[in-house]
Amino acid sequence: MKNKSTNLRVRLPALIFALEVMIVVLYAFFVTYEDDANALLQNNQTKPMENSLYQNYPFFADIQVMIFLGFGCLLAFFRRYGFGGMVFNFLIATFTIQWAILVQGFFQFYYDGKIHLGVLNLINAEFACAVVLISFGAVLGKTSPVQLLIMALLEIPVFGITEWAVVKYLKINDAGGSILIHIFACYFGLGVTFVLYRPSLNEGHPKEGTSYQSDMLSVLGTLFLWVFWPSFNSALTFKGDDQHRAVLHTFIGLSASTITAFALSSMLSKNGKISMADVQNVTLAGGVTVGASVDMMISPVAAYVLGILGCIACMLGYKYLSPFLARRLRLQDQCGIHNLHGLTGLISSLAGICAILLATEETYGPSLYQTFSHRAPPEGDPLLARLQELIPDLEAGLGRTAQEQALFQVAAVFGTIAVAAVGGLLTGVVLKLPYLASPSDEKCFDDELFFNVPQDYNCVNGPQDVWSCVLRDTNKTDTDCSKKNTEHEYEE
Amino acid sequence: MKNKSTNLRVRLPALIFALEVMIVVLYAFFVTYEDDANALLQNNQTKPMENSLYQNYPFFADIQVMIFLGFGCLLAFFRRYGFGGMVFNFLIATFTIQWAILVQGFFQFYYDGKIHLGVLNLINAEFACAVVLISFGAVLGKTSPVQLLIMALLEIPVFGITEWAVVKYLKINDAGGSILIHIFACYFGLGVTFVLYRPSLNEGHPKEGTSYQSDMLSVLGTLFLWVFWPSFNSALTFKGDDQHRAVLHTFIGLSASTITAFALSSMLSKNGKISMADVQNVTLAGGVTVGASVDMMISPVAAYVLGILGCIACMLGYKYLSPFLARRLRLQDQCGIHNLHGLTGLISSLAGICAILLATEETYGPSLYQTFSHRAPPEGDPLLARLQELIPDLEAGLGRTAQEQALFQVAAVFGTIAVAAVGGLLTGVVLKLPYLASPSDEKCFDDELFFNVPQDYNCVNGPQDVWSCVLRDTNKTDTDCSKKNTEHEYEE
Amino acid sequence: MKNKSTNLRVRLPALIFALEVMIVVLYAFFVTYEDDANALLQNNQTKPMENSLYQNYPFFADIQVMIFLGFGCLLAFFRRYGFGGMVFNFLIATFTIQWAILVQGFFQFYYDGKIHLGVLNLINAEFACAVVLISFGAVLGKTSPVQLLIMALLEIPVFGITEWAVVKYLKINDAGGSILIHIFACYFGLGVTFVLYRPSLNEGHPKEGTSYQSDMLSVLGTLFLWVFWPSFNSALTFKGDDQHRAVLHTFIGLSASTITAFALSSMLSKNGKISMADVQNVTLAGGVTVGASVDMMISPVAAYVLGILGCIACMLGYKYLSPFLARRLRLQDQCGIHNLHGLTGLISSLAGICAILLATEETYGPSLYQTFSHRAPPEGDPLLARLQELIPDLEAGLGRTAQEQALFQVAAVFGTIAVAAVGGLLTGVVLKLPYLASPSDEKCFDDELFFNVPQDYNCVNGPQDVWSCVLRDTNKTDTDCSKKNTEHEYEE
Repeated sequence: MKNKSTNLRVRLPALIFALEVMIVVLYAFFVTYEDDANALLQNNQTKPMENSLYQNYPFFADIQVMIFLGFGCLLAFFRRYGFGGMVFNFLIATFTIQWAILVQGFFQFYYDGKIHLGVLNLINAEFACAVVLISFGAVLGKTSPVQLLIMALLEIPVFGITEWAVVKYLKINDAGGSILIHIFACYFGLGVTFVLYRPSLNEGHPKEGTSYQSDMLSVLGTLFLWVFWPSFNSALTFKGDDQHRAVLHTFIGLSASTITAFALSSMLSKNGKISMADVQNVTLAGGVTVGASVDMMISPVAAYVLGILGCIACMLGYKYLSPFLARRLRLQDQCGIHNLHGLTGLISSLAGICAILLATEETYGPSLYQTFSHRAPPEGDPLLARLQELIPDLEAGLGRTAQEQALFQVAAVFGTIAVAAVGGLLTGVVLKLPYLASPSDEKCFDDELFFNVPQDYNCVNGPQDVWSCVLRDTNKTDTDCSKKNTEHEYEE
Repeated sequence: MKNKSTNLRVRLPALIFALEVMIVVLYAFFVTYEDDANALLQNNQTKPMENSLYQNYPFFADIQVMIFLGFGCLLAFFRRYGFGGMVFNFLIATFTIQWAILVQGFFQFYYDGKIHLGVLNLINAEFACAVVLISFGAVLGKTSPVQLLIMALLEIPVFGITEWAVVKYLKINDAGGSILIHIFACYFGLGVTFVLYRPSLNEGHPKEGTSYQSDMLSVLGTLFLWVFWPSFNSALTFKGDDQHRAVLHTFIGLSASTITAFALSSMLSKNGKISMADVQNVTLAGGVTVGASVDMMISPVAAYVLGILGCIACMLGYKYLSPFLARRLRLQDQCGIHNLHGLTGLISSLAGICAILLATEETYGPSLYQTFSHRAPPEGDPLLARLQELIPDLEAGLGRTAQEQALFQVAAVFGTIAVAAVGGLLTGVVLKLPYLASPSDEKCFDDELFFNVPQDYNCVNGPQDVWSCVLRDTNKTDTDCSKKNTEHEYEE
Repeated sequence: MKNKSTNLRVRLPALIFALEVMIVVLYAFFVTYEDDANALLQNNQTKPMENSLYQNYPFFADIQVMIFLGFGCLLAFFRRYGFGGMVFNFLIATFTIQWAILVQGFFQFYYDGKIHLGVLNLINAEFACAVVLISFGAVLGKTSPVQLLIMALLEIPVFGITEWAVVKYLKINDAGGSILIHIFACYFGLGVTFVLYRPSLNEGHPKEGTSYQSDMLSVLGTLFLWVFWPSFNSALTFKGDDQHRAVLHTFIGLSASTITAFALSSMLSKNGKISMADVQNVTLAGGVTVGASVDMMISPVAAYVLGILGCIACMLGYKYLSPFLARRLRLQDQCGIHNLHGLTGLISSLAGICAILLATEETYGPSLYQTFSHRAPPEGDPLLARLQELIPDLEAGLGRTAQEQALFQVAAVFGTIAVAAVGGLLTGVVLKLPYLASPSDEKCFDDELFFNVPQDYNCVNGPQDVWSCVLRDTNKTDTDCSKKNTEHEYEE
């Protein structure tokens, strides 16, 4: 028989302290500073202002705002689950980053028996964190913090391995993370929510709505994400013109999807009114759709069109696909991550493949072999030497053709979907274990379950609340009325 | 007869899709990358970290926050029009930037048959965007999104031409945009609102007030603007000491106007209490007043005094001028842009002229001819060669005297006011056309007209709301009372 | 007899105008531009992009967000004192910075008869500002803006002298300001609140609670502080690897304290639920605890452990020490600054001392004498010349041993506590003077005292409010009921 208690008093501290012990031990044995953060390695050749910190920190800071403020506010859209959305986001994000530093560190920053830590690792860890937070969107309001921490604990290694395999073996172009971040996160989250299916939620839940204030706060989160998305998509490109294009494309794609979202929101609404849920989510579709080709010479108009296409797919997904998935395929996708990250991620991957197939030396010049680094001639090829005269920093590649690169991209998309979905399903099974404080159906989307709520919690959200609270907490109406009645009667 | 429907279902999508087709066509034919974003132009001389991206992007990111979060929150101050303020700001800003990239591009970044796009254009486009958003402040709550998009569509070309004429022919000093941004935006907005005059609004509107939460959110917007205003005022100055001074002056001016605003708010209030409207608006006056002379050697104390003067003018404007304008001159200026941008812009222009007249080589050294670049000797003048030895980057100028430069500044102020006001009036006439979904007087300042509002919309804003919602939505009180009564009666 | 009026109409403007006159006079006579902001000092050797602006401005902008948005939102946690928290923070911060520019300027940036102003001074002034805002936390809701301005007016010189003495004579290592900022601010604030003791507040105050919205807003403030804290702790370190480590340690320390805070919040709560007050405050403890050793080679795991220790101390302080201090020692510490800044500051100081004692050339290489600049050999020492070959920028030091440096750190801690506490006590005595508009006990934590509040102020905060407002403002219930009754009676 399953343990039904949702009391966190033992479960949450026990889990967190266990995780902390593990992290402390692993950090103690394996984590040291990267060269640019290591005092011992500075010498009379060191130019302090050329420290990698100054190239990476501004982008890191922007992504921090997206992770903690952007996601935090965006996920606070439920009228009675604002604490849960914003605060569990905070908890999961901080744990995930600590954990991703280790996992990604072992795969990507490990040599001489140590993980070498610098701000670059933190950027990578925040990307891993975005993955977990996107998946979180699928199960928002239906999971306890204990479950969420375990989800992060399991998702990060699956992501770390996938990322490592794709980067090291498939060697794809995906600067904005459309495949590795958005598609992975989406199908992992769908896997989890498939297992955590709750039939009763398909009937609609009384606490599932938004309130005026929660809608405003959620838009604020959208705006944080919107404003700093160019930093997200460009953080890991090559420096120089590649990064410059990534900023431009992301900005153009986002602004195209934003005005399209307003048009579609009004058009697809019976009364012609705009829905805040669309403003909160669909406006962002363009940021994902430009991702896989964000550093390429796709031209500004292509970024614009990608923004429109992503927005249309995302909007139609919310309108028609999500209800279908929930009713027929047991995929209850609370924030619609399949629309904002899945469909758009697929479009983005396809666009990336087209951009790869169309890329020529005529458009890129010798930079072609930098942006598409795996198309560069291999070590020893005389062409490489000739190219290196033109671009001194150019590294040897694999001599892939455009078609070969495109095939690897396709393999990466399908591979990522498969691994993510299976990983998500298995994680979902683990999350169904007893003792994880999973909320009952009635207590979903309800802050009262896990938080000490202030006294106005039952009053500020919607008419029923106001009334029930007036009745319950002051208990004046009936009394007064009946007293009056009584008095009148007495008078008679 | 006028079409009175305000249903957006056809109008808004039709307009947006038409605009998108136009933009896609123009982007396809005319927009390409600037050199620093063009892979083809990179070669073995290119130093990636010297890409202009790294000089411009940090300022661009700060201005993004101001446009989307700062303006967005600030304009959400009406208690029942928070969605409208924040979300229409989002819509207009994104469209305006797309459109300004084209319009400003044709005037400023067009060569070889193409507009060359980089982050610098985006900064310029965000300035154009600020212009439209300031004008929006004059008609906030009284206009449909269709009208607002058309306003942006018309305002940007008028602004683009004015900017081009002033920059190319009058060649003025206006680093912070006091003339081109604040004065232009103000008088354009006043022109529009003059034509859209609604006599009934002078009687006060039941939905015009703020709520506790909307006041807080609006202050948050003020703080975003306050914090990043130094980036706004310094984004387009010369690099180096000019930009350094621009940051210092803006910060000092703002902090002087902030504490002055608190003093005046309390002093001019009958009960000595501070008004949130003053905290939201008047505190920012100093950022505008230092604008025209922000990069000059005016001395820190002058920036401080300019902050105080701007604040006083702005405050007196809100207190005495705005009511007068609304009643006597048909100028219903919803956010008081004439106070925060018009009066302060005029003071700033005057201060700029004084700073120009007082500028000497004694104070500036040879940099005088860089900060005041039109005073540099013309091409061929031997003095130029001598100066270029001292400042290698110095470009040839027009050999203007201080007095000549001052006269051009005066011409720019009056020219800008005239063009803006006429442009605004004509735009206002267009906005009165039928089919633009203009809200009726009663539906002004009401989110319910254009948004699907959450169920608590009628309950959270003010006592009447709470009560009417208790009555309407639960309908328990009367029933209960009368039932009780009835029962009692039966018992009798 | 004491003047009991709290009307600000004369008091606040009079004080602010007096302060402004003083500042204008002092700025006019004493403040000029630093070299990098002075046009006169630019010449043909000047490289504009090497202006100090570009090294300092990004950190300055981040700290601006912390001061105005971070503190502003965090301090808005009382349900009826949101305006006060956020807006008085705005007022005090702006005044403090203006004032600190002068005071710190005289001590640190004064030569040739002038204070030389640049963005670096602004960063220093924002640190001084953080000191005042932390102290403000101890008396939040119990003080008028007049009192708060006077507190800032007095605290800044005491802080300026302490800072100058410690930096110039004791020469300590304290990159993150654990001693000078956090410990000073804490004990100064406790000194003030000791004198302003209000026995009646120990019984609990009806307006002291939070609301759902105020809790959310306050978490938003926490997130702003969290996200940019690495910039705060690293703003004044040496450039290069020192600053890199400072970013890493701050981030790790904060994320360790965050997950620990969730564990402890749930564990120490009777029902196992998480408290928002803990999320708002205790999560940040790690940022303080790593402060004093933030730029040293303490290793990532040490930063992690410091985060956990700081969090435990802070949490236990909130739970057990604060109530004790309030009841027994007259220390009513409204925001618990003694837990978040005092206890953690002490731990941080101790950790800094350990890090100093353990620092060896084996770990740091010759950089040892840069990070611990007072251990560098003195001028003339042949060792200095040898070290300068390895690190060209190395400056002569005092040749201190690790033990000597540790003793100076200890002296700094005790000296700072003593000066701060005495300064706070004396300031408290000044704040008790009449005519400073100190609120009565009942009017504490109430925005209505100093602000024109919107009409829903009495309605949105908690059940009693809703009800009392329904009754008071519409006065329909009773009337309706009794009318019904009456009618019924008539019918009978």
